[in-house]
Amino acid sequence: MVTTETKIELLTRTAIASWKQVIGRVDELLSSTTDDGLEKEVAPGRNRIFYLVGHLAAVSDRLFPLLGLGERLHPEFDAEFLENPDAHAPTKVSAADLRKAWTDINSKFTAAIEALRPEQWLEKHTAVSDEDFAKDPLRNRLAVLLSRTNHASFHVGQIRLTQ
Amino acid sequence: MVTTETKIELLTRTAIASWKQVIGRVDELLSSTTDDGLEKEVAPGRNRIFYLVGHLAAVSDRLFPLLGLGERLHPEFDAEFLENPDAHAPTKVSAADLRKAWTDINSKFTAAIEALRPEQWLEKHTAVSDEDFAKDPLRNRLAVLLSRTNHASFHVGQIRLTQ
Repeated sequence: MVTTETKIELLTRTAIASWKQVIGRVDELLSSTTDDGLEKEVAPGRNRIFYLVGHLAAVSDRLFPLLGLGERLHPEFDAEFLENPDAHAPTKVSAADLRKAWTDINSKFTAAIEALRPEQWLEKHTAVSDEDFAKDPLRNRLAVLLSRTNHASFHVGQIRLTQ
Repeated sequence: MVTTETKIELLTRTAIASWKQVIGRVDELLSSTTDDGLEKEVAPGRNRIFYLVGHLAAVSDRLFPLLGLGERLHPEFDAEFLENPDAHAPTKVSAADLRKAWTDINSKFTAAIEALRPEQWLEKHTAVSDEDFAKDPLRNRLAVLLSRTNHASFHVGQIRLTQ
């Protein structure tokens, strides 16, 4: 019998599966792309694959504090991949660094969200005040995960134009 | 007090809000793009914005039967926007037709999913058998909605390259 508690768990597991599917698409794109291939721009003059993967890694990394899941692994990525546009040239992060950071961040993050109790997905994220959350209970952890899943898919669509 | 039933509703409302946000981004792109602008390719030789909007409209339209929500509005879109690649030339669907179909399909679809009871999101979609669903209860309506939300975001990312 499907109990109500089980229903909540099934809903949150469905959302986690969706996140893993999109992150898995980036994994596949990285596996099938050489380090030189990462330098390709998604459209003429637009971001390189390298930059977009770093950008997505930084955004995943920022989810640790945002969702109250612990410390970030690569706060130094923000300067290169969030606060500044693509330099369109090799920078101090190597392709090997990028690949390792991508895997480290997302495997740690996925393990952390899989360990949450289903009810914790409805709790507020750390960037919303108690007052604002009382007014809008949809500003919860699940909303953040879905938003970041969409964000990753947005950039996967761009990277796929290079294939 | 947040009851367990309310929790299920909050989770599903969060997912619906995520869908509406992504569809709203296409609405904004359509509003800010002229009919001529819809002919622009997202990258040299790649799909036109026009084609991608028709493609997303057709995919939304197919959600009516897939989620057991009634009849489709524009089955004729499949030939042009799903079964064949972009013709890269004006076809029998005009820009006015496309804009109207986009709005009609998504407003009807959003109303239909907002009318579902929260528990219905955990029911199987119509393309999975009872046997397969028993083995994998994540093949539910919510999984389809999240998958299509990601799909829309994937193409929004491509369209945004033209802006």
